[in-house]
Amino acid sequence: MILGAIEAGGTKFVCAVGNEKGEIFERVSFPTTTPEETMKQVIDFFKGKEISSLGVGSFGPIDPNKHSSTYGYITTTPKPHWGNYNLLGELKKHFDIPMAFDTDVNGAALGELKWGAARGLNSSLYITVGTGIGAGAVVEGSMVNGLLHPEMGHIYVRRHSEDTYEGRCPIHRDCLEGLAAGPAIEARWGVKGHELPVDHKAWDLEAYYLAQALVNYILILSPEKIIMGGGVMKQKQLFPKIRKYVQELLNGYIAKEQLHSDIDSYILYPELGDNAGICGSLALALNALNS
Amino acid sequence: MILGAIEAGGTKFVCAVGNEKGEIFERVSFPTTTPEETMKQVIDFFKGKEISSLGVGSFGPIDPNKHSSTYGYITTTPKPHWGNYNLLGELKKHFDIPMAFDTDVNGAALGELKWGAARGLNSSLYITVGTGIGAGAVVEGSMVNGLLHPEMGHIYVRRHSEDTYEGRCPIHRDCLEGLAAGPAIEARWGVKGHELPVDHKAWDLEAYYLAQALVNYILILSPEKIIMGGGVMKQKQLFPKIRKYVQELLNGYIAKEQLHSDIDSYILYPELGDNAGICGSLALALNALNS
Repeated sequence: MILGAIEAGGTKFVCAVGNEKGEIFERVSFPTTTPEETMKQVIDFFKGKEISSLGVGSFGPIDPNKHSSTYGYITTTPKPHWGNYNLLGELKKHFDIPMAFDTDVNGAALGELKWGAARGLNSSLYITVGTGIGAGAVVEGSMVNGLLHPEMGHIYVRRHSEDTYEGRCPIHRDCLEGLAAGPAIEARWGVKGHELPVDHKAWDLEAYYLAQALVNYILILSPEKIIMGGGVMKQKQLFPKIRKYVQELLNGYIAKEQLHSDIDSYILYPELGDNAGICGSLALALNALNS
Repeated sequence: MILGAIEAGGTKFVCAVGNEKGEIFERVSFPTTTPEETMKQVIDFFKGKEISSLGVGSFGPIDPNKHSSTYGYITTTPKPHWGNYNLLGELKKHFDIPMAFDTDVNGAALGELKWGAARGLNSSLYITVGTGIGAGAVVEGSMVNGLLHPEMGHIYVRRHSEDTYEGRCPIHRDCLEGLAAGPAIEARWGVKGHELPVDHKAWDLEAYYLAQALVNYILILSPEKIIMGGGVMKQKQLFPKIRKYVQELLNGYIAKEQLHSDIDSYILYPELGDNAGICGSLALALNALNS
């Protein structure tokens, strides 16, 4: 079985073919310029590949509602040329196969559930911390969507009393993304995150904010596993700090081993590593075939 | 078709028989004393009623995981006599019919989805604000459960700069429940909530905290409808204030009419009114029969 996968990002589109085991056979990427230019490359890549289905995990906001007239669109993005763009419709013009369309992070949560750190579970949460912060989730086997899709990076967290940085979310100023995404780290400390020493106090502050978000996700969604990817999470010193703050904030309230002695295997780096995104789209392709 | 419903609360157990349309034929309640005493009354009530299935929405924490050895238990509640109690097991000794077991608030979210304010939708969120604060949700037709069940009342919100009340959650001190449940209102202002005038500043503060919680729920779960019940929400002056704060905090970020011109029909009092809980258990009974 050959499945097609597209990880549609604001910087690049990753395209791959793989199989139902999550194995990637071939993988390319194209810069995200205009829909005309980028989508032509995407479509040319898949032509002749004999894919049985296609999964698309996309940057957003998108319309993931199958019953909506704009299902498959990238909607209100500020990214030039891509606002109100019918991405899935363009693909359907060229390929008459089952397709699935969701956020990149919902896809990644599904991919980790099928083939990664959350294998065998019914629920998972995937958060990426990089240029922005986004998260997706699977509950009882279904991706979380509803009125729209999750926008978990924009929740408000309590400010640290010593943090005077004003935040840089253009909409919410000091929401989680405004305080803790990569550009906020750089703006607050004057150097890029990866240039800061691993024992810099920046990481404790970062963990404090991310742990608050995780606590909210745990209390609201109760995922069986939390997977943290993205550029900022390559700073592995964050993980023990985040786990410690999560435990402090919950204060023993959730009586599950995963939040006590087993927390090291509850809050994790993606098992699929840098493939979490594209494998997520592959998992969406598999869903499309099975539904 | 005759269905049985139990709304198991910390103060009383409501038992009812009804049908697949959400109609209640008969309804009684028993004080929550000891399992022996209370459950005997519950079981006697249903004997001879020829119910086809039974739905139980319970106070928590509970174990809602069908694959767990303690499925159907009330688990770590501090309520005397009820900790680690096999509620569903006791019922199964007496009735050999399909049963469903979930939190009272997940049940209420399902009931409003089947017969109330969220009719025809795939997702809903139900929050009760009373002696405590709890919320449940349905996503893509399934109740949200996972590691445990949601404990949404205990999320942290930002404190209002003028609020000096320390909070009264015994675990988290100033989480949402600690700041905004009924007993917190009484402790902060020195009188019970319903004794405060409708234009008292207490209601603006209450709306500020509840709106922050709703914003987190919206960004994390994206429900198609939010239903707010419980004793505190009988103060109807809260609704316009909550809607206004939700809009201010989101600042236009979610481009859906439900959060703009249609917000009056997005954040609502339960259509099932004081029957939201018991109808939720009836909806669980219907689920048990259909699954």
